[in-house]
Amino acid sequence: MFWGSWGMWDDRGMLFSVLVEVSLREGVADPQGATIERSLPHLGFDGVREVRVGKSIRFDLEAADEAAARAEVADLCQRFLTNPVIEDSVITVTEGASA
Amino acid sequence: MFWGSWGMWDDRGMLFSVLVEVSLREGVADPQGATIERSLPHLGFDGVREVRVGKSIRFDLEAADEAAARAEVADLCQRFLTNPVIEDSVITVTEGASA
Repeated sequence: MFWGSWGMWDDRGMLFSVLVEVSLREGVADPQGATIERSLPHLGFDGVREVRVGKSIRFDLEAADEAAARAEVADLCQRFLTNPVIEDSVITVTEGASA
Repeated sequence: MFWGSWGMWDDRGMLFSVLVEVSLREGVADPQGATIERSLPHLGFDGVREVRVGKSIRFDLEAADEAAARAEVADLCQRFLTNPVIEDSVITVTEGASA
């Protein structure tokens, strides 16, 4: 009587906490980073160089195991979360839900 | 004859690679994350929950030592890189320039 009553989480397996850091590829102009870099000396912060601004995307993912989770996130990145022409992504997958 | 000729890097000390991850505080609405979360099931990705989109800011920083670098970055975050009312930041400082 109870099977199926545990919600959609449980039929897939384990829960993973995922971080995708999306950054512009080297050589791609980063006006946001350039603006920060140009402004900081006027604001009293010297010694800051090579500022690059990217996105960080965090989510929880239910998957059968870690390999499946990594494969799904890689596919997700390639297809929807990044523009592979101008962006790189670094994927971090850890077991357990985010805090 | 040569002192002062090494550029502004050398009179401050060591070079650090800094990552600042800026995320919206818990409870603050994240429309960008919500849109991603709502769309993914239609695109064939189930099991993704709690999507939160933030910023990642990477830069190189010249400072006397690691403690000085961390203090400068914390000040920078508090004053310019985040809006402390709605955003949290996680700072990672490692020795050496970024790749």
